[in-house]
Amino acid sequence: MGGPVEEELAALRLADHHCHGVTRHDLDRDGFEALLGEGRRWPGSGISPFDTPLGVAVRRHCAPLLDLPRHAPADVYLERRAELGAAEVNRRFLAASHTGELCVDTGYAPPGATVPAELAELAGGRAFEVVRLESVAEAVAARGVEPDEYEGAVRAAAEEAVGRPGVVAVKSVAAYRTGFDLDPRRPTPAMVAAAARHWLTAGGRRLADPVLQRHLLWTAVDLGLPLQLHAGLGDSDVRLHRTDPTLLTDWLHLTAGTIPVLLLHCWPHHRQAAYLAAVFEQVHLDVGLTLHHVGPGRARTILAEALEITPFRKLLYSSDACGPAEFYALGALAFRRGLGGLLQDLVDADELSLPDALRIARWAGAENARRVYRFPAVS
Amino acid sequence: MGGPVEEELAALRLADHHCHGVTRHDLDRDGFEALLGEGRRWPGSGISPFDTPLGVAVRRHCAPLLDLPRHAPADVYLERRAELGAAEVNRRFLAASHTGELCVDTGYAPPGATVPAELAELAGGRAFEVVRLESVAEAVAARGVEPDEYEGAVRAAAEEAVGRPGVVAVKSVAAYRTGFDLDPRRPTPAMVAAAARHWLTAGGRRLADPVLQRHLLWTAVDLGLPLQLHAGLGDSDVRLHRTDPTLLTDWLHLTAGTIPVLLLHCWPHHRQAAYLAAVFEQVHLDVGLTLHHVGPGRARTILAEALEITPFRKLLYSSDACGPAEFYALGALAFRRGLGGLLQDLVDADELSLPDALRIARWAGAENARRVYRFPAVS
Amino acid sequence: MGGPVEEELAALRLADHHCHGVTRHDLDRDGFEALLGEGRRWPGSGISPFDTPLGVAVRRHCAPLLDLPRHAPADVYLERRAELGAAEVNRRFLAASHTGELCVDTGYAPPGATVPAELAELAGGRAFEVVRLESVAEAVAARGVEPDEYEGAVRAAAEEAVGRPGVVAVKSVAAYRTGFDLDPRRPTPAMVAAAARHWLTAGGRRLADPVLQRHLLWTAVDLGLPLQLHAGLGDSDVRLHRTDPTLLTDWLHLTAGTIPVLLLHCWPHHRQAAYLAAVFEQVHLDVGLTLHHVGPGRARTILAEALEITPFRKLLYSSDACGPAEFYALGALAFRRGLGGLLQDLVDADELSLPDALRIARWAGAENARRVYRFPAVS
Repeated sequence: MGGPVEEELAALRLADHHCHGVTRHDLDRDGFEALLGEGRRWPGSGISPFDTPLGVAVRRHCAPLLDLPRHAPADVYLERRAELGAAEVNRRFLAASHTGELCVDTGYAPPGATVPAELAELAGGRAFEVVRLESVAEAVAARGVEPDEYEGAVRAAAEEAVGRPGVVAVKSVAAYRTGFDLDPRRPTPAMVAAAARHWLTAGGRRLADPVLQRHLLWTAVDLGLPLQLHAGLGDSDVRLHRTDPTLLTDWLHLTAGTIPVLLLHCWPHHRQAAYLAAVFEQVHLDVGLTLHHVGPGRARTILAEALEITPFRKLLYSSDACGPAEFYALGALAFRRGLGGLLQDLVDADELSLPDALRIARWAGAENARRVYRFPAVS
Repeated sequence: MGGPVEEELAALRLADHHCHGVTRHDLDRDGFEALLGEGRRWPGSGISPFDTPLGVAVRRHCAPLLDLPRHAPADVYLERRAELGAAEVNRRFLAASHTGELCVDTGYAPPGATVPAELAELAGGRAFEVVRLESVAEAVAARGVEPDEYEGAVRAAAEEAVGRPGVVAVKSVAAYRTGFDLDPRRPTPAMVAAAARHWLTAGGRRLADPVLQRHLLWTAVDLGLPLQLHAGLGDSDVRLHRTDPTLLTDWLHLTAGTIPVLLLHCWPHHRQAAYLAAVFEQVHLDVGLTLHHVGPGRARTILAEALEITPFRKLLYSSDACGPAEFYALGALAFRRGLGGLLQDLVDADELSLPDALRIARWAGAENARRVYRFPAVS
Repeated sequence: MGGPVEEELAALRLADHHCHGVTRHDLDRDGFEALLGEGRRWPGSGISPFDTPLGVAVRRHCAPLLDLPRHAPADVYLERRAELGAAEVNRRFLAASHTGELCVDTGYAPPGATVPAELAELAGGRAFEVVRLESVAEAVAARGVEPDEYEGAVRAAAEEAVGRPGVVAVKSVAAYRTGFDLDPRRPTPAMVAAAARHWLTAGGRRLADPVLQRHLLWTAVDLGLPLQLHAGLGDSDVRLHRTDPTLLTDWLHLTAGTIPVLLLHCWPHHRQAAYLAAVFEQVHLDVGLTLHHVGPGRARTILAEALEITPFRKLLYSSDACGPAEFYALGALAFRRGLGGLLQDLVDADELSLPDALRIARWAGAENARRVYRFPAVS
C-alpha cells in the first residue's frame, strides 16, 4: 500500500455519515443486477450492469473478499455470493469497510433491508439514524390531515421523529423533487396551507411542490439538527442541472448561523459544492456514492477536485451504500485509496507535511463527522 | 506504444459514427487556417489557428504523414501539403485513420467537400449517411409549403431522406438553434402549423423556432432511426450553457423505449452526458471533435472523465472530422492513444483484467457503433 | 526544478494583469486569518483559514521566504511575520514574485493597502491602474445626480477616470452584482434614466440593477479600453451559477470587433471561458486567484484544463493578490510551476517542440498581457 498516510487511512475506523440498509435476502442475477444498477437494469438490452466501472470494481475488489480471484467473472461471483448466503456476505463486506459509526438514512431502503441496529452489528460499530423529511411529510399526508393543519402536523411529526433515540440528522431530497432553484424565503403559513391543499387534493403522495419543499428546508432549520442534502448524481428521477448546490446560495445566506448543511455525493457539481464549503461556515460535503460508481481507480481524481479549495474540516466520508453490501466495502476502499494516495503524493512532493497529512486523513475519515453530528459517548 | 491494449487499439479498424466530408481542392494558408479554426480565423489579429493545441497537434502528428519531421513549421507544412496535392493528402490521412465504417453527416460540409462514397474510397471502408433534420425542414421551406401542410411535408421529406440507401441515422443541431431547454412534449399539429406560419412568413431560412425544433426531435422518434444530437462545444453560434444534455432529461423520459440517442462531442458537459448514458438505456455518447481539438496529449483525460460512470456499451468513437483530412488522422490517433493509455494503465494497476480491457477497447472503437446502427452486412 | 521550460518560466519577469494592493500595517492572527480567508473567518468555529489548501501552501512556500523551515506552524509563521514587519514582508514577497508590470484594480483594496506606486516600488516593476466601473457609478451616485443626468455623468466620470495617467483597462464585477444572465442589448437612455431613478431613490449605494449593470458593460465598449470581467469564484456574494461566462455569449457577439475582454479567475467555469477564448477573437482568460487558492501542487491541473482548447495568445497571468503580500509570491510560483511542469511534460513526451513551449511560456507569462494592454514604453 505504500506510505504512512495510506497506512493511517487503511487502519482508520471510518465514520460513514450517510448510508442505507443492505439486503438481507439472497439475490439471484436479476436481483443483484437491479441493485447494482440502481434500478438501471435494461432487460433485453444486452447491457449488463457488470459492464460499468462499478461492475468492474466489484469483480476486482469484492471478489477476493468472497475468496475468489480478482476479476472473477460475473457468473462465478454471483454463484459464490449465493453459496455463502446473504448474511455471511453482508458480514464480510461490512467488516471490510471497517466503519465505526454509521448514519443510516431510513427514508429509503430496498425491500428486505437491514435496520440500523443490524447494520451496526454487521459492522461491529454504532448506527445512528437520519430522518428523511419528505417521508415525514408524506406519512402525515397518508394519515390524513386538513390543509390548515398540515404545517403543525409536519412540525409535530418531524419533532417526534427526531426525538427518537439515535437520530442525529435530517435529510432532504429536494434535489430529486423540485431541484434547488427554490425561492429561498420561509413560506408563510397561508402559503404552506394553500400548497398543502393543492397537494393533498391531488392525492398527497410524492411531495414535489416547491412551496412544501422549501417549507421542509425551513423545518430543518427549526429542528436544529444537521441537514443532509442530496446533490448531483442519482437515478433518472434527477434533473442534474437543477441539483447544482450553488442554486441554494440565497438560502444559505438566510440560514447562516443556524444548522450545519451536508452536501451529499455532489458529482459532477463537486467543485461547486467545494466553493460553498469554502465560503459558508455551515456547509460541508462528501463525494459518497460517486466513489463506488467510479471505482477505486478513479476515486482519487474526484477527491482531488473536491479538495481543491475545500477547508480540511469540511470534507466527510460517506458510502451512500444501499442494497448490496458490496458498496460498503467499495466505498470505504475507494475513499481510503483515493485520499491516501492523494495526500501521500503531496507529502512525497513536499507540498504537505506528514503530520498535516495524517491530521487531514483522520479529519475527513472520521473526526469531521464526529464534530458535526456530536455522536453520544459510548455508554 | 507500450502494452497489449494499446496494440489492440492501434490495430483496430474503427467505426467513426459521426463525420463530414473533406475538402477536395488544394488549400492556401488562408483557406487552411480558416478550416483549422472552424471559421475562427481572425485576420489582422496576429493570432494564427496554428497557435492552438490543435495546431500544435497537426504539426506534431500530421507532419510525419506528409514525410516531414515532427513539429515542422506551419509554412513548411502548408508548402508540403500543396506540393502533394489535396487528393494525395486526403488519401494519406484517411488511410492513417484506419476506419472501417464512416457515418457521414451530409447536412454540413465545407465547399468542395467529398461525398460519402469518395470518403469511403479514401478510407478503404464503407460510408453511411446521417440525415440532418434541420436541413430537411429548411429544404421543405425553400421549396415552398403552406403552414398547415408543413408537418406532413416535413414528415414525407424526412421519410424520403431516410429511405435512401445507406442512411443509418438522423441528426439534430437543436443545441445550436434553440438549446436543449425545450418543452419536452410533442407539439400538437395546431402548434406546429402556427409556428410554421410564423417562421415561413419570416422567410423560412434558418430554423430556430422552439416548437419546430422539438417537432423535429419528435419526428426523429417517428422515423425510428438512431438520433445523433450535437451537445457541447461548437463554433460561436452555440450558447454553451444551453447545450448541457441534462436539459433533455424530461424528453428522454418521454421517449424512453423508442430510439437510441447519441450525444456528440459533449465537452465540457461530458460528465453530464455520462450521467445520462448511465441512467437511460437509450443514451450513448462520444467525445468526438473534442479529441482533435485538445490533441492526443490531452485526449486521455477527457476520455477518463467521460468514462467515470459510463456503461462500456455506451461510449462510441467519432472524429467529427470536417474540412481538412488531418482531423480524421488526428481524431483516430487521439482516441486510440487516449483510450489505450487509460485502459492499459488500469490493467497495469490491476484495476481491470486484460480481457476486459481488450473487450472495452473493441466495443468503444467499433462494436458499440455497429450495435447501434446495425450496418448492413458487406454484400 | 527540472527542464528548460521550467527554467525559462522561473526566470521570466511576469506581467500580472490583475491584482490589488497589499496591507501596509502589521497583522495579528485575527487580521491575517481574516485576509487569508477573504473574510471567511468563522470565529468560534474551530476552523482556521490555515486548514485549507491555501493555508498549507502559505506555510510550505512562504515560510522559507521569511527564513523559516518549510511547513512552519501557523503560530511560528505569524510571529516571524510580525517580527520582520509588514514593510519587509511585503518587500520579500513582491520581490519573490518577480513581476515586471502590475495592473492594479483600485476599486477594491483592504484598509491600509498600498497604492499602485508603492506596489511598483516593492516589486521593482511598473504599476498601471484598472478602473472599476461600478465604483465610478457609485461615486457619481454618492456625489448626487439627477436620474436623467446619470448616463452623461457616468460617461464623463468614466472618461475622466480612464484619462488619468497609467490607466490601462476597466473592470466590471457584474458577476457579483447581477450575474451574467443580462439582456445583451445596449439599454436606451430612457431605460437607463428609469433604472437610475429607481436605484438613486433607494439610496444609490451598491449598484446591482440589471439595466445599470449592462449599461456599464456598454460604457466599457464606448471607452475603448480592455475590459476585465470577474468570472467564477469569489466570496459568498457570488451566485456561482450566474458567473458562467458563456451566459455572455450574445453580448460578445454584439460587441465583437470592439474591445478586448479579459475573463478573470474563471474556476470552476474555466473550460467555459476557454471555449469563449477559442471562438471569440476578443476574449482572453486567466486562472488568477484560483492558483493561490488551490496551491502550487494543484495549479497544473487547473492550467491544463484551462488550456485544453485555448489559443496560446489568449492565456494571461494574474495573481489577483489582495491583502497579504503572500498571494503575490504564491500566485507567481503556482503559475510558474504549473505551466512549466505542464509544458515541460509535453516537450518530454514529444507532443510539443521546445521552441514552441518556450514561446507559449513567454506569451502566457508576460507577452500576451503586453499585447492586450499596450503598456507604454519605459521612459
